[in-house]
Amino acid sequence: MAQIDHLGIAVKSLSAAKSIYEKLGLTVSPEETVEQERVRLVMVPVGESRLELLEATSEDSAIAKFIAKRGEGIHHVCLRVPDLSAAVERMKKDGVRLVSDEIKIGAGGHKYVFVHPSSTGGVLMELVESHEHA
Amino acid sequence: MAQIDHLGIAVKSLSAAKSIYEKLGLTVSPEETVEQERVRLVMVPVGESRLELLEATSEDSAIAKFIAKRGEGIHHVCLRVPDLSAAVERMKKDGVRLVSDEIKIGAGGHKYVFVHPSSTGGVLMELVESHEHA
Repeated sequence: MAQIDHLGIAVKSLSAAKSIYEKLGLTVSPEETVEQERVRLVMVPVGESRLELLEATSEDSAIAKFIAKRGEGIHHVCLRVPDLSAAVERMKKDGVRLVSDEIKIGAGGHKYVFVHPSSTGGVLMELVESHEHA
Repeated sequence: MAQIDHLGIAVKSLSAAKSIYEKLGLTVSPEETVEQERVRLVMVPVGESRLELLEATSEDSAIAKFIAKRGEGIHHVCLRVPDLSAAVERMKKDGVRLVSDEIKIGAGGHKYVFVHPSSTGGVLMELVESHEHA
């Protein structure tokens, strides 16, 4: 069964956004920086999911470009699926457009793929495999 | 503890969007129409959350206006909290801006409130009380 792993939310100021989600009564993780993606982020656990607040560390970051074009807001939705290879195979067979045809390996060794917004009703959708979060 | 109740996704064509999410291997509910909000919708369960695919039934629907301005994509995030009145009181005290100051009652009797995007980093956020989904 799929689950929402996290929602990536592009924000201008991580410190301002953190305080907002704390006011909503949520707990915010310590900040981390992902150099490869040129973002600084915190995670806000909500049930089995998380909100991922993303601040660009450089103007050529995808997050900076997103905010310049659309303003702050939800950048992507990440679903957790039990078998990522099977999901990718099925999607390709069904003509779903992926951002990259290959499954990628993230910094922590997790596998992920992005589905193109044109195939999801305007939503940039990341898929990850579920066991690493179980 | 808060959970993600659902993500509201504004789509131009409900039938096209449904087929996309079925291709992702997800189950889609039968269509329903909410006259009051001028939308037709389906729900796509993902773990403890749902994706709510929303198609406007009229040009003056908030969903039609959203698509005209920003294109298809995520319209709102709905969090489920254990005590909505307490959350609203705490937010008001902390200066969080709500779309409407009063808790509203939906068609099915559920209580909800919308937090203004200016207070959440660009995300239109709905809050509902958790027991009705437990």
